[in-house]
Amino acid sequence: MRVRIALAEKGIDYESRAEDLSNKSSLLLKMNPVHKQIPVLIHKGRPVCESLIIVQYIDEVWRDRSPLLPSHPYDRANASFWADFVDKKIYPTGKLVWGATGEVQEAAKKGLIGCFQLLEGELGDKPYFGGEKFGFTDVSLIPFYSWFYALETCGNLSSITECPKLVAWAKRCMERESVSKSLPDQCKMYCFLMELKKKCEGK
Amino acid sequence: MRVRIALAEKGIDYESRAEDLSNKSSLLLKMNPVHKQIPVLIHKGRPVCESLIIVQYIDEVWRDRSPLLPSHPYDRANASFWADFVDKKIYPTGKLVWGATGEVQEAAKKGLIGCFQLLEGELGDKPYFGGEKFGFTDVSLIPFYSWFYALETCGNLSSITECPKLVAWAKRCMERESVSKSLPDQCKMYCFLMELKKKCEGK
Repeated sequence: MRVRIALAEKGIDYESRAEDLSNKSSLLLKMNPVHKQIPVLIHKGRPVCESLIIVQYIDEVWRDRSPLLPSHPYDRANASFWADFVDKKIYPTGKLVWGATGEVQEAAKKGLIGCFQLLEGELGDKPYFGGEKFGFTDVSLIPFYSWFYALETCGNLSSITECPKLVAWAKRCMERESVSKSLPDQCKMYCFLMELKKKCEGK
Repeated sequence: MRVRIALAEKGIDYESRAEDLSNKSSLLLKMNPVHKQIPVLIHKGRPVCESLIIVQYIDEVWRDRSPLLPSHPYDRANASFWADFVDKKIYPTGKLVWGATGEVQEAAKKGLIGCFQLLEGELGDKPYFGGEKFGFTDVSLIPFYSWFYALETCGNLSSITECPKLVAWAKRCMERESVSKSLPDQCKMYCFLMELKKKCEGK
């Protein structure tokens, strides 16, 4: 989703290939032999892997169109810090809210709300994490918005009560075609996650 | 260690403050309220956190002295990929070799050797991961060399047999003052890790 958004922000045409992760293609295994994961961006025949690294690569190659990372090193470091925070804290904690039960889930809910509060503190009164412009941290976080319905349902979380600023920010991002066309519908995501949960529990 | 090496490579003077992590200073809590972890670089009164982000920041601010990241976006993405690999795979797997026992430790040993082989494949016949020059991936990985004696002892791993190219690379890095002065002695690291293990087991 991050890669799709970045490519759309830059207005870059691309060919997209779906992967069946239970039966990975030889192209995927060749292009990402280390992690064997998606996404992989193949540009001029060479692979770039890991979503945040891909987004930074796209931003550097097509620097003249809608820059995502700021130009000052301090602002760049700050944007990278929050994008890294999303990977290290938001997704792992979100997964526990969705997949765990009992005390573990309760702790994860508190943890996730704490993370949202930190993000709201960083956002402040700016329209985007990137300031006036939609930027790198926005790209890194907004795909998580597609989890919100699943989290509200599985975790009995009211996102609008717990993190109203973040919901307002997410809706602002969703008004961008680059975002709305790149994210799955929240209810579809919920169904996907419920299917995945059943499979995991069946194992 | 990464931050010390990067600062030394650039020839930047700095003041260093040790932290007692069992009794964190108010300065640390103020400068890194999100993760409350070291390292933190305070530059012009503003904090930069997370070691790889700090190293990239140092490289961007002092771009004219010994560049660590290459200039081409693809090469930059590749260096970031391997630095990220060190964080995601090498340290977590190394910790299991050091701290786990039985089957978990055996699996971690195999995993770590697999990771070393991937790194040796990436290194190839180059003197450094950065090519002819010591670079970003080198900075990210070399601190792990200080774990080698502990891994050999706890994990009964022979690094020279398992990853001779990597050991040769590490020795090459250790000839640089920026590295040798920034890394702790392997035996001291072993003692530190054994103390830590006792504390963890006591909990």
